[in-house]
Amino acid sequence: MSGTEQEAQGPLAGITVVGLEQAISAPLCTRHLADLGARVIKVEAPGFGDSTRAYDSVVGGMSAHFTWLNHGKESAALDLKSAPDMSIFRNILATADVVVSNLAPGALDRLGIGTRDLSRNFPRLIVVDISGYGKGGPLDHKRAYDLLIQSEGGSCSITGAPGHPAKPGIPVADVGTALYAYSAVLAALYDRERTGRGAVIPIAMLDTVAEMMGFALNQVIHAGTEPVPVGMGSPMIAPYGAYPTSDGQTAVLGTTNDREWRRLAEMIGRPELADEPRYAHNDNRVEARDELDAVVGAWCAEHTLAEIQKTADAAGIGNARLNSVRDLAEHPQLVERGRWREVGTPTGPVPALLPPAVADGWPVRSGAVPALGAHTDAIRAEFA
Amino acid sequence: MSGTEQEAQGPLAGITVVGLEQAISAPLCTRHLADLGARVIKVEAPGFGDSTRAYDSVVGGMSAHFTWLNHGKESAALDLKSAPDMSIFRNILATADVVVSNLAPGALDRLGIGTRDLSRNFPRLIVVDISGYGKGGPLDHKRAYDLLIQSEGGSCSITGAPGHPAKPGIPVADVGTALYAYSAVLAALYDRERTGRGAVIPIAMLDTVAEMMGFALNQVIHAGTEPVPVGMGSPMIAPYGAYPTSDGQTAVLGTTNDREWRRLAEMIGRPELADEPRYAHNDNRVEARDELDAVVGAWCAEHTLAEIQKTADAAGIGNARLNSVRDLAEHPQLVERGRWREVGTPTGPVPALLPPAVADGWPVRSGAVPALGAHTDAIRAEFA
Repeated sequence: MSGTEQEAQGPLAGITVVGLEQAISAPLCTRHLADLGARVIKVEAPGFGDSTRAYDSVVGGMSAHFTWLNHGKESAALDLKSAPDMSIFRNILATADVVVSNLAPGALDRLGIGTRDLSRNFPRLIVVDISGYGKGGPLDHKRAYDLLIQSEGGSCSITGAPGHPAKPGIPVADVGTALYAYSAVLAALYDRERTGRGAVIPIAMLDTVAEMMGFALNQVIHAGTEPVPVGMGSPMIAPYGAYPTSDGQTAVLGTTNDREWRRLAEMIGRPELADEPRYAHNDNRVEARDELDAVVGAWCAEHTLAEIQKTADAAGIGNARLNSVRDLAEHPQLVERGRWREVGTPTGPVPALLPPAVADGWPVRSGAVPALGAHTDAIRAEFA
Repeated sequence: MSGTEQEAQGPLAGITVVGLEQAISAPLCTRHLADLGARVIKVEAPGFGDSTRAYDSVVGGMSAHFTWLNHGKESAALDLKSAPDMSIFRNILATADVVVSNLAPGALDRLGIGTRDLSRNFPRLIVVDISGYGKGGPLDHKRAYDLLIQSEGGSCSITGAPGHPAKPGIPVADVGTALYAYSAVLAALYDRERTGRGAVIPIAMLDTVAEMMGFALNQVIHAGTEPVPVGMGSPMIAPYGAYPTSDGQTAVLGTTNDREWRRLAEMIGRPELADEPRYAHNDNRVEARDELDAVVGAWCAEHTLAEIQKTADAAGIGNARLNSVRDLAEHPQLVERGRWREVGTPTGPVPALLPPAVADGWPVRSGAVPALGAHTDAIRAEFA
């Protein structure tokens, strides 16, 4: 393939990915592979399909989750428990480059397509096997949803308010696992290009969350202190948080070191606090968090958000607006930078964001969200 | 390089990565590249270094964050504002494969090594340029920390309790950006292997958070309803949440569909609720959330965590324990699966987790955490 042709098609043009997938982790992984030009064949159970199809019907009959995660894919409704459909499925595997699965523990083995079988029969195949808890250990049989893994993984215990743990709204366990799966596929494609060999890559959602908890784990292991959730603040620095403004909005700002604290104190017209020895160091300010939050909050309550942000920018103090999801949907930083594109659905085009990381010059595929089994006939004919 | 040698060294053996990096996003990206065998040269400002070095000193004098993110790297303390050090730096670039930067907006341009300059002078180089808000738009000059981006990106507005937004404890904006940067480098390495060309990849933290908010964005755009944070629960399904047990622990469990609800009602000895028409469908149960939480909570309060989990497993109801960070550090699922390794530090070995996604047969590099400038002399000599 010439460089020009490839540039028009994305770096993964020519790569075929099979998704034995549902919910979030595997579908987001394969969607990003599709974004870069791979052909993604999503294999779904006839009649039901991916469980997220039924979550709601807000996007012209399709769900908010399914639409987010599945554009640019082909949907093949195949019954892998039937011999004829399994025969077609194995023919797909024979030409595929990548399989990504997040079916229930043991499901692949029961279908006779466990990872060992796959790598023996298709040595160039890259197989990603996503599970909740990995193989071995006391929990490897257990169901795994995002909330459950975030609970087991300690993520909820450092989120929320003291005594009131909360689940992060972004499904961190699912999304993080998707991105580890996505990067593992790319590493394996690079490796295969040079060695000719495929790969089997097991990924456990618990391991993903544990990795992301690395800073908190080190704190507990080495200092022996359990981090406490402090709402919008940080357990490790102060003052930092969200403060109501005079025009009914919420400003988010704070300090990340002692120099910034002195600038902040001057900025809010309290230069005497900048010189106060008992606030000089961050550890003292963390102890005096409530006191300092009251001071910063009092100043914010007397200014509009625009005034606060202009003043903080000039003083070199990081600041932001506490946005709703609606605010994000209309965020000028997304609109003015052309981050929205359109993708098709069975009932017409809908807005979708461009993927976050695309090199200059790489085209992004903007294919449609498939109805359940929309490509079954074509795929049966192609792989009969 | 032969296949055998490569297997012993990891798939990225022979790749050199330069990190112009601090805090979390770029360092986690380059650490994962090091995990797979790449050589990572971390360029730090003499005297100060990466800002996370000063966060605390709990790990034998190094900080919890820095230790998490920087093992397996070489630290070169170079003053890029001095001509002799910049000359050495450009010699490093001439042999490097990848540069990952998350310096402040405009910093690379001011150093004369903006992305255009780099791709013109080093056409095989892969350049990742991480920023808070990308180029263009009203906010592209602004400081960007995890809390600020999560606030702008709506992530905090769907986390916490109603009226009490909270920042997810895991720094989702930073970690997510790290993983998009990591995968983009791998995609670009694969592309370069076939085309011979490098790549320039801009990544904005706001775009990362917006991608992860895709389900919530679709809900707002298409249904017009703003998701509300509900603590440990889900705004979209019920009952689901965290419930105190009779032995002073907290069980997390719930239902993901109508069939599971009927099983759950029977499991807690309330089969009449399974047949109650006003609880038959999820949307009705979401409205009756408080009522159903009370019923599930009452049952959990009369059973130990072990009883609850055994019963729920048998009934096919997903369940977990609400763990602290200490619980995670001692989690049998990590210990029994051999997920802990040791990495070096200037004051001795410390435990570190294996990376979440490694193919069977790929070795993982477990290099040491470098003291500031530990490799400066060697790198000066090598690239003089």
